[in-house]
Amino acid sequence: MNRDFLYNEIAGRMAHQIRNGVFKAGDRLPSVRALCQEHGISMNTAKRVFVELEAQSLIDSRPQSGYYVSSLPYYRLPLPGVSKPSPIAKDREPEELISKVYANMGNDKLTLLSIGAPSGSLLPWPRLEREVAQAARGLKDGGTGYAPLQGSAQLRKMVAIRSLTWGGRLVDDDLITTNGGMDALSLALMALTKPGDTIAIESPCYPGILQLALSQGLKVLELPTHPTTGIEIEALKKAIPKIKVCLLIPNFNTPLGSCMPDEHKREVVSLLAAHNIPLIEDDVYGDLYYGTRRPKCCKSFDTEGDVIWCGSISKTLAPGYRVGWIAPGRYKAQVLKLKLVHAITSPSVTQEAVGNFLQTGRYEQHLRLLRRTLQDNCQHYMRTIAAHFPEGTKTSRPQGGLALWVELGKQADTTILYELALKKQISIAPGRMFTLQDQYQNCMRLCTGLPWTVELESKLKQLGRMAKLL
Amino acid sequence: MNRDFLYNEIAGRMAHQIRNGVFKAGDRLPSVRALCQEHGISMNTAKRVFVELEAQSLIDSRPQSGYYVSSLPYYRLPLPGVSKPSPIAKDREPEELISKVYANMGNDKLTLLSIGAPSGSLLPWPRLEREVAQAARGLKDGGTGYAPLQGSAQLRKMVAIRSLTWGGRLVDDDLITTNGGMDALSLALMALTKPGDTIAIESPCYPGILQLALSQGLKVLELPTHPTTGIEIEALKKAIPKIKVCLLIPNFNTPLGSCMPDEHKREVVSLLAAHNIPLIEDDVYGDLYYGTRRPKCCKSFDTEGDVIWCGSISKTLAPGYRVGWIAPGRYKAQVLKLKLVHAITSPSVTQEAVGNFLQTGRYEQHLRLLRRTLQDNCQHYMRTIAAHFPEGTKTSRPQGGLALWVELGKQADTTILYELALKKQISIAPGRMFTLQDQYQNCMRLCTGLPWTVELESKLKQLGRMAKLL
Repeated sequence: MNRDFLYNEIAGRMAHQIRNGVFKAGDRLPSVRALCQEHGISMNTAKRVFVELEAQSLIDSRPQSGYYVSSLPYYRLPLPGVSKPSPIAKDREPEELISKVYANMGNDKLTLLSIGAPSGSLLPWPRLEREVAQAARGLKDGGTGYAPLQGSAQLRKMVAIRSLTWGGRLVDDDLITTNGGMDALSLALMALTKPGDTIAIESPCYPGILQLALSQGLKVLELPTHPTTGIEIEALKKAIPKIKVCLLIPNFNTPLGSCMPDEHKREVVSLLAAHNIPLIEDDVYGDLYYGTRRPKCCKSFDTEGDVIWCGSISKTLAPGYRVGWIAPGRYKAQVLKLKLVHAITSPSVTQEAVGNFLQTGRYEQHLRLLRRTLQDNCQHYMRTIAAHFPEGTKTSRPQGGLALWVELGKQADTTILYELALKKQISIAPGRMFTLQDQYQNCMRLCTGLPWTVELESKLKQLGRMAKLL
Repeated sequence: MNRDFLYNEIAGRMAHQIRNGVFKAGDRLPSVRALCQEHGISMNTAKRVFVELEAQSLIDSRPQSGYYVSSLPYYRLPLPGVSKPSPIAKDREPEELISKVYANMGNDKLTLLSIGAPSGSLLPWPRLEREVAQAARGLKDGGTGYAPLQGSAQLRKMVAIRSLTWGGRLVDDDLITTNGGMDALSLALMALTKPGDTIAIESPCYPGILQLALSQGLKVLELPTHPTTGIEIEALKKAIPKIKVCLLIPNFNTPLGSCMPDEHKREVVSLLAAHNIPLIEDDVYGDLYYGTRRPKCCKSFDTEGDVIWCGSISKTLAPGYRVGWIAPGRYKAQVLKLKLVHAITSPSVTQEAVGNFLQTGRYEQHLRLLRRTLQDNCQHYMRTIAAHFPEGTKTSRPQGGLALWVELGKQADTTILYELALKKQISIAPGRMFTLQDQYQNCMRLCTGLPWTVELESKLKQLGRMAKLL
């Protein structure tokens, strides 16, 4: 029997047992070895069963002890299926909807469940504020002069050092700073494609990436994506002949929160490299893992410089600073040139401030707190959804990041829910925004980066009541 | 006789007389009326003669009194002719040369005559430093949150108010902030063109604009340009059928420092509007006039929103802050969308700091000082060039801005001069950078935004000696 089928089959059966109380919260599961013997499968296959269950947040691993049924209260909410986008590249951009939703950005009167950024109250801004003032004082001429084209040496050094946390071995000179993460993706796409080329992405996908690709005249091929393990590798294989570049958010992708297992990352990198297709890796959520360790990046499996790794502090420290970076691998010269052409350079003050902050060690401290908060938030959201949303509502199982993907019944239309909710000062991101195809109309993304309060809980309940009306 | 020919003819004769001492420094010239009678020409033609001579810095006007021969000591340096680019759109980008020259950016060990930005020592950075610290303190959550898409309200308000100085009547809502001036041009080009379109520009032209256009897949038509009055309108008329957009730096364009007379601006705006061709106006140098008042912008003659006006503080306050703006006229929705797609938003702290600084009134004070310094510098450069550069060296007559265009003898090659000079820690911008065609090899741009010192003077003399070896 096919190995893929086998582990899915076994994992599915165990998931069913957990959801139905055969195994209860806190129960210890059979060991890997026991599973091998019971099913007559290899160690590798048995391990993949546990990885899959862990990815679905159904179980937790405890070092030196084994796997236990997760004590999270929401595991009875079913998981959406693997997405099924059309295998034809499409370009029906829901432009009006996206503009409408993003126009709410910065509107203090709304409960902004629509914007994928952490709330200011979760950010260490008093300290950053001081870093900015100090950076302005510390830089030559107050930082009024052009920064070097490649960007702040201090920031690049710190990002290079931190690459060890995800299996990277970057050095300062591998990195170029950018005006936030989107600018990094934009430079990468410009360096690697020309109008008319096709790029492959996850589906559902962050609307900014869809719009960026279209604005550069690219065709977009949306790939079937598993809500916890990311793109389906078989689908990517089939797409290979059609695509020029692949752009993925392997770690805690928005809107799904999926995280590609290391094994998948390795496979994708070698598959693409074998066909000379560069991979643009958007890693802005990588530091926001709920689990015990930071996931690896595809870049860590890259030997030839074919993976262009992009990051920023927009999801962890300061969306408003617009500080990001790119490790463009073998495309460094092109990216540097495009940076010069499009922006001359990046602002020095904010880059320097962030570089200095990263050095203080407070970043780690802040991240620990933020990750805990985001994970707690996510559980609060799921508990509230389980109790107050319509029967049959499905949710993703984010393993990190800021987003929860909610799938209502087939008949529900979340663009209508958007309008209803807006009247109650709630802004959501309807599923239709996350694709160029006619789908996800019954889905929505909720940002979990807001502090959990009585008011937020009541807004979520209200949203659930409105969803029942659809 | 053709009116254009007439005024050029008379202006040319008078310029010859001034250069040869018939009229001496400080002499009063005949009045407009006297010139009419003497040559049997109209008041308008007579006025154009004086405008032309003033544009060449040969004469000064004194209010209520008339025109006087300029007391500047450099008027014997001849002016380069009108440029003669090919009427065919070209794309031979001198990429390697540009990369080499820009790689010197921020290198403290060099005398950077190559970079078109004011030196930090001419900028009010101690005050800006405090504004940055205050802005970080004043903004909600220290400015860590996303700024509104359209940009800082404070900055937009101040730019709108200042539009009165150039004949504009902008309101806050007409403006969108950008990551510096190049970002504004980039957004404008993306909003108005698609790959394969042709844009018309001045020649010689700022290399960043050439590269930006090519990077967006555009064809570039370089127009003949007069060193003091800007593009030749007749040439633009002929180009009309071929072009989709026109992009000009009407005020103190780099590298020539030319300034289109108001009359030309009006004519260009109405000519382009009649053919539905939008004009992108890069006005980053407009505040740096050496004369008595700020020149108007083409935008002030725009009635239908066809002129997209772009500005920044990179040439006046803080290149390193990357703060700019765009008044996109009727293309606002497209530009807003592109801003969201490419950058999400601009950094709030630096925008806010600049907005607050503009409000203090210190900007005017600073500009007065900076303009005086730049004008003095320009005279120092020209005097030094007149004394130490090869016989026959021609220079532009900047009426504002940061650049001096120097034309050596036909045999000289400034890419060789670049290499020679670099060995002596001097960086210049060779003429070949400013075109996609094979020309300007005997020209160079010198940035006049450095403080005039004994050392700078000696570097310029050294450069002159090297130029004599070519």
